[in-house]
Amino acid sequence: MFETAELGHKIARDEYEREEPKFREELLRAQYALKESAERAVVVVVSGMDGAGRGETVNMLNAWMDPRLIQTHGFGEPSDEEAERPPLYRYWKALPPKGKIGVMFGGWYLDAFENRVSGATKNAAFERQLERIVRLEQMLVSEGVLVLKFWLHLSKEKQKKLFQALEKDPSTRWRVTTENWKRFDEYDRRRLMAEQMLRYTSIAEAPWSLIEGDDARYRNLTVATVLLRELRKHLGEKGPSLRKTEAPPLAPPIDGLKVLDGLDLSKKLCKEEYEEELEKWQGRLNLAMRKSHFKRRNAVVVVFEGNDAAGKGGSIRRVTAALDARQFAIVPVAAPSEEERAQPYLWRFFRCLPRRGQMTIFDRSWYGRVLVERVEGLCPEDAWMRAYNEINDFEEQLVEARVVVVKLWLAISQEEQLARFNDREHVDFKRFKIGEEDYRNRAKWQSYAEAVNDMVERTSTDICPWTLVEANDKHFARIKVLRTIVEAIENRA
Amino acid sequence: MFETAELGHKIARDEYEREEPKFREELLRAQYALKESAERAVVVVVSGMDGAGRGETVNMLNAWMDPRLIQTHGFGEPSDEEAERPPLYRYWKALPPKGKIGVMFGGWYLDAFENRVSGATKNAAFERQLERIVRLEQMLVSEGVLVLKFWLHLSKEKQKKLFQALEKDPSTRWRVTTENWKRFDEYDRRRLMAEQMLRYTSIAEAPWSLIEGDDARYRNLTVATVLLRELRKHLGEKGPSLRKTEAPPLAPPIDGLKVLDGLDLSKKLCKEEYEEELEKWQGRLNLAMRKSHFKRRNAVVVVFEGNDAAGKGGSIRRVTAALDARQFAIVPVAAPSEEERAQPYLWRFFRCLPRRGQMTIFDRSWYGRVLVERVEGLCPEDAWMRAYNEINDFEEQLVEARVVVVKLWLAISQEEQLARFNDREHVDFKRFKIGEEDYRNRAKWQSYAEAVNDMVERTSTDICPWTLVEANDKHFARIKVLRTIVEAIENRA
Repeated sequence: MFETAELGHKIARDEYEREEPKFREELLRAQYALKESAERAVVVVVSGMDGAGRGETVNMLNAWMDPRLIQTHGFGEPSDEEAERPPLYRYWKALPPKGKIGVMFGGWYLDAFENRVSGATKNAAFERQLERIVRLEQMLVSEGVLVLKFWLHLSKEKQKKLFQALEKDPSTRWRVTTENWKRFDEYDRRRLMAEQMLRYTSIAEAPWSLIEGDDARYRNLTVATVLLRELRKHLGEKGPSLRKTEAPPLAPPIDGLKVLDGLDLSKKLCKEEYEEELEKWQGRLNLAMRKSHFKRRNAVVVVFEGNDAAGKGGSIRRVTAALDARQFAIVPVAAPSEEERAQPYLWRFFRCLPRRGQMTIFDRSWYGRVLVERVEGLCPEDAWMRAYNEINDFEEQLVEARVVVVKLWLAISQEEQLARFNDREHVDFKRFKIGEEDYRNRAKWQSYAEAVNDMVERTSTDICPWTLVEANDKHFARIKVLRTIVEAIENRA
Repeated sequence: MFETAELGHKIARDEYEREEPKFREELLRAQYALKESAERAVVVVVSGMDGAGRGETVNMLNAWMDPRLIQTHGFGEPSDEEAERPPLYRYWKALPPKGKIGVMFGGWYLDAFENRVSGATKNAAFERQLERIVRLEQMLVSEGVLVLKFWLHLSKEKQKKLFQALEKDPSTRWRVTTENWKRFDEYDRRRLMAEQMLRYTSIAEAPWSLIEGDDARYRNLTVATVLLRELRKHLGEKGPSLRKTEAPPLAPPIDGLKVLDGLDLSKKLCKEEYEEELEKWQGRLNLAMRKSHFKRRNAVVVVFEGNDAAGKGGSIRRVTAALDARQFAIVPVAAPSEEERAQPYLWRFFRCLPRRGQMTIFDRSWYGRVLVERVEGLCPEDAWMRAYNEINDFEEQLVEARVVVVKLWLAISQEEQLARFNDREHVDFKRFKIGEEDYRNRAKWQSYAEAVNDMVERTSTDICPWTLVEANDKHFARIKVLRTIVEAIENRA
């Protein structure tokens, strides 16, 4: 694979000097067009061998283009806040908004590659991580992000010569460290692992560009050529239409029976039972969240979804009443903000993941995409179709990062909902909670029921199952909510 | 001072049970009205003695109101990312947006108080920190934030009895730690320091409420009473008009001579000199930023302001060309985003302060408030008037956190500006950079000159001076920019 990048490519100085200003002007022009349309973000991953000019390439991109529209990120050791989240969290944080170019030194390949080279991960885990990266990139591309990946290569012989030359000159000696020589000793292993990685992750949506790094002029012009070509190809295209996902068709239940139909909504608890149970489960929740070995290693995410007026708010208050206010955060999910709209849709959820010992309660969640956005036609079909897999991926990452994930659907009947709406109209301080929209949504009861059915079918996984909560009786619902959360935490502990 | 909070206040159970539901309903109502108007944020600081019910109060607020509209923050040790910024950085990060209530456990008093009690800071430093807190709170109030501060008190005797009672019962024994007893031993000192702190920071805009913490019913109802009264008083009021600052009138220079008039805009460098100097200063900049003892302890902030078309972008590129792309970030400052508009105006700058070893370049900056916002009438006069002091405070905090702050004003003449605008019209890829607005701004040349004059007069401080850059000649300007930055860094190193 690397043979083509060991041929000794070179560009003559006079040719370079002729070409460079043209590229600079064209790249600037493309960059401003990118900014103007604000339809796409661009991620440039710069990776490769030591001495192959990775740093120089990043600097070149900043020098040739308008650096105000470029965000550059290097990744050292994760900070303590980052280390407590899933490994991809810090790369999500670094994603550029629409209209900008994000240049990532090493990018999300960094950890996977270095851990494999050092032997910290075996091949199976390595492939799993690469698979996850592939899915991340496919998701980004689907969301209209242009993903460009450059691998700068240098042959073993040339690397050795370079290090020796640098060491000879007192003014450049500092640039060669013992780390560099250590990595030189590992050269063959690195080359092998890199080949595997590049092959595995050179997907149609985001192929690697393999570039010989020895000659700076050749390297610069090649990077500029690829970047300019890809920018031009995609400029003006509407972001999310780049990649049409062939979503597997959903098989509607032909007998019309949906998962919610199986619920016995008449389940009830009387006041006395409720108060006794409430005390008991709140106590157990408090205890479970305070256990020091749980707190040190785990976090909790609770997702509340359900029909309008199903009692999400009241249930959430029964949960938080059992907790110390410093232990939890509630994220009410409404329409995304301007900054959030400039990012892939999962970005806003990544940014509020809990640290260890914390519980984040999502009052509505990332499932909005396959519920309200699907039913109301707020996003194209292929976008919500692929969301099922993206969500499963996302939750898998949470579970691997030792987050307990609890997903609750609070279900009420149409009659009960109407009764509650009427009640809200007549209680003064509840009137805030009811609007025309709520009545409009009722008209789509069947569509929502189908969406819920598909959601449960596709995202109720072994590691992150849905719990359907019969919520016509508020007492019963609140206790079931509490019990589900407590048992999930206790099972982990 | 604490005598009134040692009287043994009590509320009978039946009275409490009668009052509680009323308060809950009224607080909810006020909370929704707060959300609806989205004019104000509310900060509630809960502080006080051990065992006086601080945690319980925070939990009560979350239980009585809608916790989805409350953000609760406890503050432990700063994370490594926080420790590299000014001490108030993490409190800024925790500010609630308009429409929400932020409950802060200890809040910004935490560090100042604990350091004083432990003796880590002497009295002079303590008073300085309190002074800074006062200015922060005044600024918040001016920006329409409602700041409520509760000090929950417990007499020494009652604290002792409480700890002993808790220790006796096996089920509550875990709640009393050796830390608690240590703080009990320091009780008298803590009381003294707290008295000084409360006296010093009980300002008219944000007074402390001193509440006896022994009786939970009394405590809850008192906190609720104060909170409800203040919410009601300020609901519906437009945020920023709360506090009228009496800004000291500016004394316009009666001879009409302004600071920019003193500049010799004919200063020039020929191409050869320029290229030689460019090489020299870029080399020195690179070296200065790489020095390891500088990198470990310091960061750099560079502010670029100047007339339109004064060459900010070109100058910035000459600076960044000398740096490794991982060392700097450029923050182009345009109109604030939605999330930024929901916060005090300095918030957006706090969030992009550099970590150690990093340089953040602001392409326009917080000075927008006293330049474009003043001249275009985008904010009321008292807001930009008080901004001078707020900015000086902000920069002082940066300098204390070992940030090198360089502020550059690039000045060109009216004739030169017109020539550059015409040039931009005629070069294809520069056309992005010129719009009607640019011509409109020209009409206000005199107003801008006055604003710049006042800005320099009021914010060119000893620790953060302005450098005026004669920029009719781009060569001269770029070298002066580089030299100014390099010398500032070298002086620190």
